Amino acid sequence: MNRKSHNDFKINQVDLITDLQTLIRQPSVSAKNIGMTECAIKLQNIMTKAGIATKLIYPDQNSNEFINIKSESKLGYSPDLKNDAIPPIVYGEIRSKKNPDGKTILFYNHYDVQPEDPVDLWENKDPFSGKIHGNFIYGRGSSDDKGEIMTRIKAVEYLLKKYGDIPCNVKFLIEGEEEIGSPHIKAFLNQYKELLHCDGVIWEFGYFDEKDRPLIILGVKGILYVEIVTKGGPSRDVHSSLASLIENPAWIMVNVLKNIRSDSGRILIPDWYREMRPFSNYEITILQEQPFDEEFFKKEYGIDKFLNNLNGFEAKKYYEGMPTCNISGLYSGFSGKGSKTVLPNKAVAKIDFRLVPDMDPDLQFKRLCDHLEQCGFTQDMLEIKLVHKTPPARNSSINNQFISVVEETAKNIFDTAIKCISSAATGPMYYFMNILDAPCVCIGSSYKYGKAHAPNEYARLDLLLKTTEYISAIIENFGKINRKKLNQSKI
Amino acid sequence: MNRKSHNDFKINQVDLITDLQTLIRQPSVSAKNIGMTECAIKLQNIMTKAGIATKLIYPDQNSNEFINIKSESKLGYSPDLKNDAIPPIVYGEIRSKKNPDGKTILFYNHYDVQPEDPVDLWENKDPFSGKIHGNFIYGRGSSDDKGEIMTRIKAVEYLLKKYGDIPCNVKFLIEGEEEIGSPHIKAFLNQYKELLHCDGVIWEFGYFDEKDRPLIILGVKGILYVEIVTKGGPSRDVHSSLASLIENPAWIMVNVLKNIRSDSGRILIPDWYREMRPFSNYEITILQEQPFDEEFFKKEYGIDKFLNNLNGFEAKKYYEGMPTCNISGLYSGFSGKGSKTVLPNKAVAKIDFRLVPDMDPDLQFKRLCDHLEQCGFTQDMLEIKLVHKTPPARNSSINNQFISVVEETAKNIFDTAIKCISSAATGPMYYFMNILDAPCVCIGSSYKYGKAHAPNEYARLDLLLKTTEYISAIIENFGKINRKKLNQSKI
Repeated sequence: MNRKSHNDFKINQVDLITDLQTLIRQPSVSAKNIGMTECAIKLQNIMTKAGIATKLIYPDQNSNEFINIKSESKLGYSPDLKNDAIPPIVYGEIRSKKNPDGKTILFYNHYDVQPEDPVDLWENKDPFSGKIHGNFIYGRGSSDDKGEIMTRIKAVEYLLKKYGDIPCNVKFLIEGEEEIGSPHIKAFLNQYKELLHCDGVIWEFGYFDEKDRPLIILGVKGILYVEIVTKGGPSRDVHSSLASLIENPAWIMVNVLKNIRSDSGRILIPDWYREMRPFSNYEITILQEQPFDEEFFKKEYGIDKFLNNLNGFEAKKYYEGMPTCNISGLYSGFSGKGSKTVLPNKAVAKIDFRLVPDMDPDLQFKRLCDHLEQCGFTQDMLEIKLVHKTPPARNSSINNQFISVVEETAKNIFDTAIKCISSAATGPMYYFMNILDAPCVCIGSSYKYGKAHAPNEYARLDLLLKTTEYISAIIENFGKINRKKLNQSKI
Repeated sequence: MNRKSHNDFKINQVDLITDLQTLIRQPSVSAKNIGMTECAIKLQNIMTKAGIATKLIYPDQNSNEFINIKSESKLGYSPDLKNDAIPPIVYGEIRSKKNPDGKTILFYNHYDVQPEDPVDLWENKDPFSGKIHGNFIYGRGSSDDKGEIMTRIKAVEYLLKKYGDIPCNVKFLIEGEEEIGSPHIKAFLNQYKELLHCDGVIWEFGYFDEKDRPLIILGVKGILYVEIVTKGGPSRDVHSSLASLIENPAWIMVNVLKNIRSDSGRILIPDWYREMRPFSNYEITILQEQPFDEEFFKKEYGIDKFLNNLNGFEAKKYYEGMPTCNISGLYSGFSGKGSKTVLPNKAVAKIDFRLVPDMDPDLQFKRLCDHLEQCGFTQDMLEIKLVHKTPPARNSSINNQFISVVEETAKNIFDTAIKCISSAATGPMYYFMNILDAPCVCIGSSYKYGKAHAPNEYARLDLLLKTTEYISAIIENFGKINRKKLNQSKI
């Protein structure tokens, strides 16, 4: 494994861009169930063209993680999603001809994207343009996750063209529900456990930092996403002159929210932090060694200080390792231009709680509901809908050959690699680690300060190409390792 | 003055409906500056056709009440509205031929309407339909205030046709900015004080209760309408995984709001209640005598109890005589279907404070700003925009011949009349009382439980006709009173 081996790396850049544009220009917003199957079919065509045997698998209608939640609390419920159309999972596979019993890498990705709103803030008001300006390609999904998908597919295509074979076995699992909490992935992994057997998972995202250094991220936070609707007011929006006699659901919402989180950010729900796993020695070491340009970070996001004036080690610890409670959406009454005097019928808050190991989203949901009940809120005043949930995950050890191959390959290609204990974001890694019993690493082509989930999301062309090279090198290097050894190292 | 005198009342109902439909179908939303002059011209045509000499007068560009506010607080500001197009005031006049030196009634109304949102909740999604179903005519403005305007115009038209003259002088002042706080009315009244000289003002609205009894309302609440924008977060909407390091403006908003009002509805701003005038004996008597069907009220608005379990005298006192703090609008981040994980760039709250005599909106605005500054909020975290303001007003006495004529006419036509110390709603009555030195009474054709300011606003045709008769009888009866006597009674 040395740098020289990849000096000859050369892929068809136009082909990568064209295929990525095809995917970006096909909106696939899982939250709105728009364009899902259409996007899956376009993706299947691109994979087939690359030489990957691909099929669409429809998850079992009855396997939704959220169907059978029976909250013991009066206030909480989860929606019945049984009848929703489920986007297919795109499964792909190539077995190595030379090394069929060798190692297997599973690429986990997703072809669904976040909602494009607010459209007004996109340049040219086109969130699905796929337009290129210089080194940037714009559009919802350009980075998260269609850009990443292309680096995996094009790496495989490159190797197939170069060798007429693939150095180790590769599998692709590309789902269409990641942005809505992957409700069917747990059941899918259980059902297809043998098919998906692998020795390591390359996760769906990864970043380069402000100095173009690649990050190797070893975990993800979990999430509990709820929608709280306050009622208890009039049966319709009414004239605000009635405010002396009729309760305003927006005021009830203020009361609810102030009981959930303190001004300093601490979550006020009893026992919320109880199962939080203490940081291990190796995690503390990683945090200490990790460079973090705080001023650059602040400048990028237009802030002059961190929450509670955090800095140094503590800032990194909070970012990667602490739970959060965030208001993603809040609305009630009149939001138009100018003024309207109205007493609204309801208020809605969309709240995402990020979770860290070993917090359990179901238990936290119950705690939230119980807490608000304890605070005196009744079913007449509010309801709490569980919108989605994912447990947190971290690799329990880094003494793993798969992770070592990734790290060494990164150092070989980029001269450096920065390990992180966890992403601050979320994905269903917990199920991959536990059901497939495989280590997972997040690496990818996104710029750390790109605009994922926001208007004018973009991917950098140089990083897309470099990551394609990186992934192809990982496949080559992983192909060189004896399967027996790998198994031993896992044990 | 007896009932018989109006047994011959007969107006052209089709004509009233057609003219009202013309006005409803011309949207005139002052908050959005849509259709204002168009509506004024249509109104002028209708008045001219009725025989009323009418002209459009444009308020002075520099007379906006909000321009010269200099809040001493760092957080507060008022928008510079100098360059906004100002809707014309429709002024109309008929002098009595027989009784030119007699009494003068001024009708104050407004042709602007509240915003039509949310359009989805209107039947057929058409807020400006003017459609008739049975006894109801639908559309924004059907009741507030285009329906009321028609009762005044058609009453005058009826008398002109009947007598070829008008029993007392009448004047019309119909403005286009009532729903945005009448920012130019004070200057207009000062400028045209002589032109507008009158002995009594019929206010722009009035109600019939659930038993079709007419209300005579003797005051209005004031208002302070502010828009609070919290900042202090990222310079754009960002991924919610950043919530452990970056402050969320929606959480700052929760913190702001909980410092403004207690859960029980008490306003927490120091000295807020200081200038509240104690209820006079006559006000207490009116409140005590006033029927109030609490169960009917609750049923109409779909509630099972009043705020803080108020009832009886206390409920009436709060409704008519106590200040409020209402959230009219609240929004931040993602409000679409499903979920999006975003940390928003800002949060906005639109708050209307209703004021009672002798609270001063300017002083209250300063107190609000100072209070939030005292709470520790800085200019980096929030700004408070004064959107509009109107002082409260109540007739200081009911020993007034104009009010007596209105009351006796009501009793004559309806057998009953219910006096109220104040509307819970707002209008610029303070300026009329103080600049024109005239008593003001609110009477009109609206049903107390109609849907003013809300979707599916309607007017009842029977009440429109009955009120037209009522107004014409008031003009007749007021024409019978000697001017000298009236002046004496006023002194």
